[in-house]
Amino acid sequence: MKFSELLQALAQSENHSLVINPACDPDITGVAQVEQAQPGTISYIDGNKFASAIDSTGASALILPLDGALQTKATDREIAWVASDQPRKLFAETIAVFYQPFQLEPSIHPTAVIHPSVQLGKNVAIGAHVVIQAGATIGADVCIHPNVVIYPDVIIGDRTVLHANCTIHERTRIGKDCVIHSGAVIGAEGFGFVPTSAGWFKMQQSGYVILEDEVEVGCNSTIDRPALETTRIGRHTKIDNLVHVAHGCQVGEACIMAGQVGLAGAVTLGKRVILAGQVGIVDHVKIGDGAIASAKAGVHHDVEAGAIVTGIPAIPHKLFVKAAAVFSRLPEMYQTLRRLQKQK
Amino acid sequence: MKFSELLQALAQSENHSLVINPACDPDITGVAQVEQAQPGTISYIDGNKFASAIDSTGASALILPLDGALQTKATDREIAWVASDQPRKLFAETIAVFYQPFQLEPSIHPTAVIHPSVQLGKNVAIGAHVVIQAGATIGADVCIHPNVVIYPDVIIGDRTVLHANCTIHERTRIGKDCVIHSGAVIGAEGFGFVPTSAGWFKMQQSGYVILEDEVEVGCNSTIDRPALETTRIGRHTKIDNLVHVAHGCQVGEACIMAGQVGLAGAVTLGKRVILAGQVGIVDHVKIGDGAIASAKAGVHHDVEAGAIVTGIPAIPHKLFVKAAAVFSRLPEMYQTLRRLQKQK
Amino acid sequence: MKFSELLQALAQSENHSLVINPACDPDITGVAQVEQAQPGTISYIDGNKFASAIDSTGASALILPLDGALQTKATDREIAWVASDQPRKLFAETIAVFYQPFQLEPSIHPTAVIHPSVQLGKNVAIGAHVVIQAGATIGADVCIHPNVVIYPDVIIGDRTVLHANCTIHERTRIGKDCVIHSGAVIGAEGFGFVPTSAGWFKMQQSGYVILEDEVEVGCNSTIDRPALETTRIGRHTKIDNLVHVAHGCQVGEACIMAGQVGLAGAVTLGKRVILAGQVGIVDHVKIGDGAIASAKAGVHHDVEAGAIVTGIPAIPHKLFVKAAAVFSRLPEMYQTLRRLQKQK
Repeated sequence: MKFSELLQALAQSENHSLVINPACDPDITGVAQVEQAQPGTISYIDGNKFASAIDSTGASALILPLDGALQTKATDREIAWVASDQPRKLFAETIAVFYQPFQLEPSIHPTAVIHPSVQLGKNVAIGAHVVIQAGATIGADVCIHPNVVIYPDVIIGDRTVLHANCTIHERTRIGKDCVIHSGAVIGAEGFGFVPTSAGWFKMQQSGYVILEDEVEVGCNSTIDRPALETTRIGRHTKIDNLVHVAHGCQVGEACIMAGQVGLAGAVTLGKRVILAGQVGIVDHVKIGDGAIASAKAGVHHDVEAGAIVTGIPAIPHKLFVKAAAVFSRLPEMYQTLRRLQKQK
Repeated sequence: MKFSELLQALAQSENHSLVINPACDPDITGVAQVEQAQPGTISYIDGNKFASAIDSTGASALILPLDGALQTKATDREIAWVASDQPRKLFAETIAVFYQPFQLEPSIHPTAVIHPSVQLGKNVAIGAHVVIQAGATIGADVCIHPNVVIYPDVIIGDRTVLHANCTIHERTRIGKDCVIHSGAVIGAEGFGFVPTSAGWFKMQQSGYVILEDEVEVGCNSTIDRPALETTRIGRHTKIDNLVHVAHGCQVGEACIMAGQVGLAGAVTLGKRVILAGQVGIVDHVKIGDGAIASAKAGVHHDVEAGAIVTGIPAIPHKLFVKAAAVFSRLPEMYQTLRRLQKQK
Repeated sequence: MKFSELLQALAQSENHSLVINPACDPDITGVAQVEQAQPGTISYIDGNKFASAIDSTGASALILPLDGALQTKATDREIAWVASDQPRKLFAETIAVFYQPFQLEPSIHPTAVIHPSVQLGKNVAIGAHVVIQAGATIGADVCIHPNVVIYPDVIIGDRTVLHANCTIHERTRIGKDCVIHSGAVIGAEGFGFVPTSAGWFKMQQSGYVILEDEVEVGCNSTIDRPALETTRIGRHTKIDNLVHVAHGCQVGEACIMAGQVGLAGAVTLGKRVILAGQVGIVDHVKIGDGAIASAKAGVHHDVEAGAIVTGIPAIPHKLFVKAAAVFSRLPEMYQTLRRLQKQK
C-alpha cells in the first residue's frame, strides 16, 4: 500500500501527535528493523540508540520521534516519515496493519469432542481434537486451537484465544480478550498437603482460578487453583512463559511477570507490579502498586508501593547495587581487616 | 448436611482427638476461609494467626484446636464446633466431604487410540484422543484424561490419575495412587551428550523412570530417564509445577519439591527432604534425610541429614541469615575499612 | 552378540584409538554401569572415579581408557576389553548398538488432520491426532509423535523428530536431524508490549524462529518468535528441559543450555557457549564464544569469549569463589570492624 494509505489505516489510533512529511509517498510492503530495512519497508527510530541509523537505513519510510533534526535528515534522504510522541507504539500499530497472527476460521472441527451441555457463543472457532467437558460456556468469537482440553464448568469470555495444547481445569473463569498460549495450564490443583505423622495429607483444592479481561498467559505457564476461594489475575496483566502462580495468589491489574517468575501460595500483587525474569516471591508476601522486582530477586518480605527491590533476599535496588559492587572486594577486605587486627 | 452428619462422615479419620459442642446442629452446605465464611459454612482456626476471627466469623461451624478459650467463645456465639489436635488435617478431610476433583467415568472414549497389545485393568477411564502405544499395562481404576500420550511398554498402577496433555515416555513405571498433572512429561530422554572434537555426541538414554506409589508430579514438570538404570522418585513424594528432575536422580520417600525446583543429573535425595521454590541442586550431590533447602538455594555440596541450607552457594541457614543481614552494610563497611586503613 | 561382533558394529566410528584384548570373546547382551554390571554386559571405565571398580565389576566386557594397568587387570580377570582415547564416546556408541529410542513406523495415522496444502516428504511417520495446518513442509523421514500441533507455513527438515504434545507455531523453520521433545513450544509470540498511558499495547510478533540442523530442544522448553526478523538457534546447539529463549535471541552453534535457563529478549550467544542450570541472561547481553555461565548465574553485562562467570550479578568465576568464601565470614568481619572502630 501507499505510505499515505498506511497513515490513513493508522489514523484511528489515539495518543499520537503526528507530523507528516508530504513530499513523497512510496509503496510500503512490510515492516523492518531500521538497520536491516530494505526499500519498500517502513521502520522506526525511538530514542538515541538507533538515531544514527537515519544516515544509512534502506527503509522507504520511517516512524520518528518529535525531533526536528531527525525529520530534516529523513526529508533530505527522501525517506517518507511520520513523527509521533510514541514512535514505538505507532510502530506496533504499523506491524499490526501488515501482520496478524494465525487464527482459525469460525467453525467447529468434526474431530472436536464437545459435551452436549456446553454453551457455544457466536462465531466460535474450535480446532481439531479439542475436548470440552460438561457445563462449559464459551463466549462469542472465541478461538480454541487444536488439542486444547477444557475441564467441566469453565467459562471463557468473548474473543479469547486458547493456543494449541493448553489445558483449562474445572471451574476456571477466563475473561474477554485474553490469550492463553500453548502448553499453559490454568486452574489445576494447588500444591496443598498437610504434614501429618503419617505423611503428606492431600488438601483438596475446591477453589477456582479467575483471569479477568485482557490477561495473557505465556507458553507452559501454570496458574493453580486454591483449596478455597480463588486465585485471581487482574485485568490487563501479562504473564510470560514458564511462570508459576501458586494457589490463592491475588494479582492486581496491569502487572507484568517475565519468564520463569514464580509466586508461592497466597502472594498478593498490587496494580502495575513488574516482576523481571526468574523472580521468586515467598508465600503470603504482599507487593505494593507499581513496585518492581529485578531479575532473579527472591522476595521474602512485603514490598512498598513504588519500591524497586533486588537480590536474594531482596533489598532496595540502589542498596543492592552498592553492596554487590563491594561483594567482589570481599577477599581484599578480609585481608585488610586481618592485617589491621594484627597491627593492633 | 447437618453438622452431626458431617462429623459422622469424618469419624473414620484417625489421629484426631475430637471434642464436640453438642449444643447446636446447623445445616452445613460448604467450606470457607474463616474470615470470608458465610452462614451455612464450616471453617477452621489453626494457631494464633486466625484466632481473632472467632469474634467475627460468619461460619455456622468451626474446626478448632484443643484450646478451651476458643471453644468457649465459639459456644458463646452459638457456633457449632469440633476440636482436634490436627485442625488443619481435619479441615482438609472436611473439604473432601464436600468436594472431589473431576474424574472421568470408567469407559474408553471411542476416539482414544489404544494399541491392541495394551493391557487394561478393571474400570479404567480413558478420555478422548488419548494415545497408548504397544505393550503398555494400565492398572485398575486408572483415569487418563484427554490428549494424554503414553509411549510403549509403560506400566501404570491402580487408581493413578493422568491429567490432560501429559506425556509418559517409553518403559516408565508409575506406581499406584499417583497423580500426574497436566503437561508433565515423565521418562523423556535425559540430557546426555559426550563432548568430542566433532561436537556433542548423543548418548542414548536406555534407562527408565520409576515413580513409586502415591507420587504426585505437578503441571509441566519433567522427569528424565537416564542412559542406564533408573531415575527413581520414592513413595509418597510430592512434586510441584515446572520442576525439572534430570536423568539418574534417586529421590527418597515423602520428599517435597516446590515450584521450579531443578535437580541436575544423578542427584540423590534422602527421605522427607524439602526443597523450597526455585532451588537448584548440582549434579551428583547427595542430600540427607529430612534436610531442607530454602527458596532459591543453589546446592553445590552434599547436605547432612536434618540440615537447613540457604544461599548460592548454599550454606547453613542460620549463618546465611546473619551474613545476608551484613550484606546490606557492605558499602558502609567498605568505607569504614578504608578510613581505618588511612588512619594507620 | 559376541564381543567381536560388537566391535565390528562399532568399527565405523572414527576418532578412536582402539586396543583390543583378543583372549576372550563373551556373549554381550546389554550395557550397564560398571558398579552394577552383571555377567553378559559391557560397561566402561573413564578416569579415576571408577577405576577401582575394575577389581569387582561383574561385567563380561569393558571399555577402558588407554591405560595399560587397567588393561592388564581386565585381562587378568578374564574380562574382554577394548581401549580408546575416548572411552565415554565409545560407550555411548555401544549403548546405541543395543538401544534406540522408540520411533513411529513410516505411515500417516488416520486420525491425523493434515491440511491438503501440506507437503510431506518420503517415509514420514505421523502419529495419531497430529494436526498440521496449511502450507507446512515436512521433510523426508520426519517422525511426528501423537498430539503434536503444527501451525501454518512451518518447515521441518529431514529426519527431525517431534515428540508427543509439542507445538510448532507459524512460520517456524526447523532444520535437519533436530529433536523437539514433548511439550516444547517453538515459535510462539514473543512477550512484546509497549507501555502506554492506557496500558500495555501489544506488539504483534511478525518474525519467526529458525532452528538450524542438529538442534535439540528439551521438554516443555519455549522459544519465542520476535516482532521482526528472527530468533535463531545455531546448528548443533542442545537445549535441556524448561528453558526459555525469548524473542529475538541469536544463539550460535554447538551451545549447551541446561535445565531452566532463561534468555531475555535479543540475547546473543556465540559458539560453544555453555549455560549451566537456572542461569538467566538479561536482555540484549552478548556472550562470547566458548564462555561459560555457572549454575544460577544472573548475567547483566556482556561476557568475553572464553570467560567463566558466576553469581548474581555474574562476575569472573574465580573472583566469585573467593568472595563467596568470605561471605560466610561477614558476621565476624562486621564485629571485628566495629571493635576496631571503637578502639580508635
